[in-house]
Amino acid sequence: MTLIEPTGTTGPVAGALPHARTRPLPATAVRLLPSGALGAWQERNAGATIPHCLDALETSGALDNLRRLLDPADPEHHAGEYRGFNFADSDVHKTLEAVAWESARTGEPAHEDTVRRIVGLLGRVQAPSGYLDSHVQGGAAPSAEPYADLRWGHELYVLGHLLQAGVARARATGERDLLDVGRRWADEVAGRLEAGEEIFCGHPEVESALVELGRETGERRYVDAARRMVDLRGHRRLGSGPFEPAYHQDATPVVEATEVAGHAVRQLYLLAGVVDLYLETGEAALLDAAARLWDDASGRKTYVTGGMGSRHKDESFGDPFELPPDRAYAESCAGVASVLWGWRMLLATGDGRYADAIEHALHNVVAAATSLDGTAFFYSNPLHVREGHDGTDEYQASGRRGWFACACCPPNLARLVAALHTMVASSHDDGTIALHLYSDADLELPGTALPDGGTADGARLAVRTGYPWDGDVVLTADAPTPVPLAVRVPGWADVAQVRLVVDGRRRPVEPEGGYVVVPPGAREVRLLLPMAPRVLHAHPRVDAVRGCVALARGPVVHCLEQVDHPGVALEDVEIDVATVAVGPGDDALGIGATLVAGGWARPSGHLPLYRDASGADAPEAVRVEVRAVPYAVWGNRGEGPMRVWVPAARTDAAARRTGR
Amino acid sequence: MTLIEPTGTTGPVAGALPHARTRPLPATAVRLLPSGALGAWQERNAGATIPHCLDALETSGALDNLRRLLDPADPEHHAGEYRGFNFADSDVHKTLEAVAWESARTGEPAHEDTVRRIVGLLGRVQAPSGYLDSHVQGGAAPSAEPYADLRWGHELYVLGHLLQAGVARARATGERDLLDVGRRWADEVAGRLEAGEEIFCGHPEVESALVELGRETGERRYVDAARRMVDLRGHRRLGSGPFEPAYHQDATPVVEATEVAGHAVRQLYLLAGVVDLYLETGEAALLDAAARLWDDASGRKTYVTGGMGSRHKDESFGDPFELPPDRAYAESCAGVASVLWGWRMLLATGDGRYADAIEHALHNVVAAATSLDGTAFFYSNPLHVREGHDGTDEYQASGRRGWFACACCPPNLARLVAALHTMVASSHDDGTIALHLYSDADLELPGTALPDGGTADGARLAVRTGYPWDGDVVLTADAPTPVPLAVRVPGWADVAQVRLVVDGRRRPVEPEGGYVVVPPGAREVRLLLPMAPRVLHAHPRVDAVRGCVALARGPVVHCLEQVDHPGVALEDVEIDVATVAVGPGDDALGIGATLVAGGWARPSGHLPLYRDASGADAPEAVRVEVRAVPYAVWGNRGEGPMRVWVPAARTDAAARRTGR
Repeated sequence: MTLIEPTGTTGPVAGALPHARTRPLPATAVRLLPSGALGAWQERNAGATIPHCLDALETSGALDNLRRLLDPADPEHHAGEYRGFNFADSDVHKTLEAVAWESARTGEPAHEDTVRRIVGLLGRVQAPSGYLDSHVQGGAAPSAEPYADLRWGHELYVLGHLLQAGVARARATGERDLLDVGRRWADEVAGRLEAGEEIFCGHPEVESALVELGRETGERRYVDAARRMVDLRGHRRLGSGPFEPAYHQDATPVVEATEVAGHAVRQLYLLAGVVDLYLETGEAALLDAAARLWDDASGRKTYVTGGMGSRHKDESFGDPFELPPDRAYAESCAGVASVLWGWRMLLATGDGRYADAIEHALHNVVAAATSLDGTAFFYSNPLHVREGHDGTDEYQASGRRGWFACACCPPNLARLVAALHTMVASSHDDGTIALHLYSDADLELPGTALPDGGTADGARLAVRTGYPWDGDVVLTADAPTPVPLAVRVPGWADVAQVRLVVDGRRRPVEPEGGYVVVPPGAREVRLLLPMAPRVLHAHPRVDAVRGCVALARGPVVHCLEQVDHPGVALEDVEIDVATVAVGPGDDALGIGATLVAGGWARPSGHLPLYRDASGADAPEAVRVEVRAVPYAVWGNRGEGPMRVWVPAARTDAAARRTGR
Repeated sequence: MTLIEPTGTTGPVAGALPHARTRPLPATAVRLLPSGALGAWQERNAGATIPHCLDALETSGALDNLRRLLDPADPEHHAGEYRGFNFADSDVHKTLEAVAWESARTGEPAHEDTVRRIVGLLGRVQAPSGYLDSHVQGGAAPSAEPYADLRWGHELYVLGHLLQAGVARARATGERDLLDVGRRWADEVAGRLEAGEEIFCGHPEVESALVELGRETGERRYVDAARRMVDLRGHRRLGSGPFEPAYHQDATPVVEATEVAGHAVRQLYLLAGVVDLYLETGEAALLDAAARLWDDASGRKTYVTGGMGSRHKDESFGDPFELPPDRAYAESCAGVASVLWGWRMLLATGDGRYADAIEHALHNVVAAATSLDGTAFFYSNPLHVREGHDGTDEYQASGRRGWFACACCPPNLARLVAALHTMVASSHDDGTIALHLYSDADLELPGTALPDGGTADGARLAVRTGYPWDGDVVLTADAPTPVPLAVRVPGWADVAQVRLVVDGRRRPVEPEGGYVVVPPGAREVRLLLPMAPRVLHAHPRVDAVRGCVALARGPVVHCLEQVDHPGVALEDVEIDVATVAVGPGDDALGIGATLVAGGWARPSGHLPLYRDASGADAPEAVRVEVRAVPYAVWGNRGEGPMRVWVPAARTDAAARRTGR
């Protein structure tokens, strides 16, 4: 049955990927350095977030849920009391995946004793059939029968995360113990599908995981299982009520869908899985659907921070252009999922727009989800918090929390960040190395095949840059580059202002598909990106931010915080867009730059909720200095009002009223 | 124990009301005429909505739930299958209340055979203790024990509606059969409270009902029971998760609360009950709290349509100024509840601002909730529906539905509308009759006490007006008015433009507390209200409608519908506010006027979701004629885009771009 060729590469989405336009490098080929923004993030993830998640597996009860399967009466492990949501096992699996990628990143197995204990526990509690879900096995589910509730049960979602953890551990350390546990369960599921059972999960996730298992094991049956699940889905087999079929991604077959809909994280995971399938099968309908839905999401249903999923209610994508900043749900997991989907789209197409989206989400919604110390998290990521916001609900809090009743986000962030280095660059069929993300890094460039059958020497490429605070990206090779370098020109940059200097000589900047190609033989490549502040306007149908602007610089979207505007209410501030300038960085916030501007505050406390135009009583304006910090670091100086979209002053009128 | 003096008046909130500033008239003293807007609404309610609700009690299973208590195995009544939410009994009770007020309105018992059958059924299935909840008694609840789940069980909510139905029937027809059923249960509850049990309901409603029962029976113990429940509430006795205590109105004692919060309908019902208690007890802290929370609601958390409760998630009041038009929840029941609360505030204070609010809610959010034919309903009442809105969820549908899984709204609307005539006027201690709502009506003015101990003759007062389409309100008495008339000057009207003519002579218009007083002896009073279109602006903190205006005329807020704007996308329309004018009525919609204006459409389909200011590519403007219809009648010509808040064109720039 072995039809896929395993390749032994060490990051996510690794393998021959027969239908990819570009492929991941071996994870060991790229090392992000702590001197750069992305490398520092990985260091914090390793030093703070992953240990925090491991601790939380104990305190939340997720591990006890599994331990009790050994002895249900064990008082030490909360006998009889399943804790958490029915998919709490996935917190364990996602944390194990994070640890595995962290091991791959450093080359040193991390937390190995802990991991071995957990893997041993999983192996011991696994049912003889291969099934492994503590909620069902522990008797906490309404039915003790596996897959009795495909709509809500989350069992295949849990399997998916188990498989991804096993695949990650195998790729990172060569240890196949966890992979074997997962595979036994996957065999059970594949067997059911092959026997005609119509099983798939209300929460997509296992699709990507089965494809990854196929890549890692070389067994086509897992890819086929994922393909079958995608076919089964979308025909309302899961029923409805109280949630609509769209919530469970079961309203429309994905190849027929014309817009992203329903629960955002489920939609995004499904689409990542669909592209994983395309990478193996080459079915055009799969990639066409994914590209079509990408256009819908990016063109009508994405926040300026990269967040997706507008609605708290049902955690869903809203209507087109329904992007309220205050009620943005923009779940942290949707941010993670959008990167996973985007990376697969980039591999499938080589198109830089997907790298743009990855970069954008990473530097904004994904980064904001974690506190500066790495141990507190946002579940939802609003773009506006008002004075008087009621943040008692942990899912719409105005401050980060250490953990959640539904703790999907923290370990999801941990597993993504531990693998960030694998998205820095990729390799085309012709040997070209494409550079996607800019941050201090060391890369190993492979040599190319020589006509005589040998291989030319490779080279080491040092990426050095203050990006995203600085637009100067310097690539220095220790030998003439053996392969072409495809250097990404971010979509946010005005191409006319981008400079490319190769070995001291200006080169024309005429990107194709988002990249300029530097031929082999270079020693130094400098990309100079324009870092002037950008004032962003939303499409006029984004009614919720009419008359407002968002400030950005490079890929970094900024926001205003009340703490930077003492003496005035943030809600009363209007910005003078003509005065926006770069301000100093802030070491305490770990940022290399801020944005500053002039503006006005118009105290509005006296105004009625509604008034006739005739009764309009424009408040006196007070000049204020506006300070905008990257959205990524908001909420690290106490809780308080914040806004990304800021009303733009009509400067002529404003000037008149202040007598200027 | 009889401490309250029963008075035998025939509408809601009837009784001595010792702490009222103004009191309801006997329901028979006011008859709304079908020639007026409110009377026509009552006719439609009687002819279509109430019969529709009675039918639905059969088709929804609400009556079968009760019938099965007689014979759980009865196959005719869906043996073993409780249908609907756990408070489905309240659909029955609310419908019975509607029928009762309808009987009071006409003086003819309506649907009497049906009512007697249902009352007989209720009496037969009532437990010996008095308890009567088919969800618990029928075994559908997790526990067969009454009040086992005060947070979710809704039993006391069901009791409340049963009591209100019983009180209404007794007042309307003199029949106390239903009242006796309810009272037996109320006695059981009062007994528990008197014995020290801490019972109150996660969904407030029974508080008002117990006070009404006290008024009708003269038994103080029911008022005391309601008072005790208000004291018990707000200390988090009900626990939390998955919903916060605020959802169940249990986060803060109402006398300490500073803002409306949590589930909007629950909050509003609670506040109505609190004012009911004030009317009996005169406790200043109760009225102070209600007035404080009214200010919060009306000043920061009410839609321009009168809708309350911004969020679909948890059906809650949102943060201050969080009033998104597209995601407005503005539940129909919250509209009903705001009127119930407002009427009690008006009775307690005599302040016309509460009459303004009642009028505003009635003519906008409450009216819109029902279709023109009276048999379909909105559950939520958005102020903006976009092209591409996903209306498959019945609670956020873009079209009205005949019934709902949670069918609270239709019978709630029916019971309110059947009693509309009782809010037309009220009586002060000094004999003054205050007129609150203007629509064709005949009133009986009482005579006053004479010094010799006799009573002066009363008079008949005919109210004739095309209001709200016309501002001319004519009051004609068949004899010199025996009492002062307090004539309401609506808060929406510019007082300088209001005219008052008494027996042919202009009188000064200097309203106090919203009313001008016409001394006794008048034969004809004409109130002329200014009916020019009004262009409304929202407080600048209502970010969701920045740069937009809403059009109103009199108390009627208007909206734009796609169906009136062929050839352009409603989303692309901007209005030229300087050109707003009154347009012709529309018989098919039952409206006496529309609003028209010039405007521009700026096709925006080509624009990216976000763009740099430098890349702003203003679309070419196309001149369009704008037609606005009352919000009350939207959605009666098929489903499609609608918006109340419309972007205001910056006319100078717009003119430039179109070359004018």
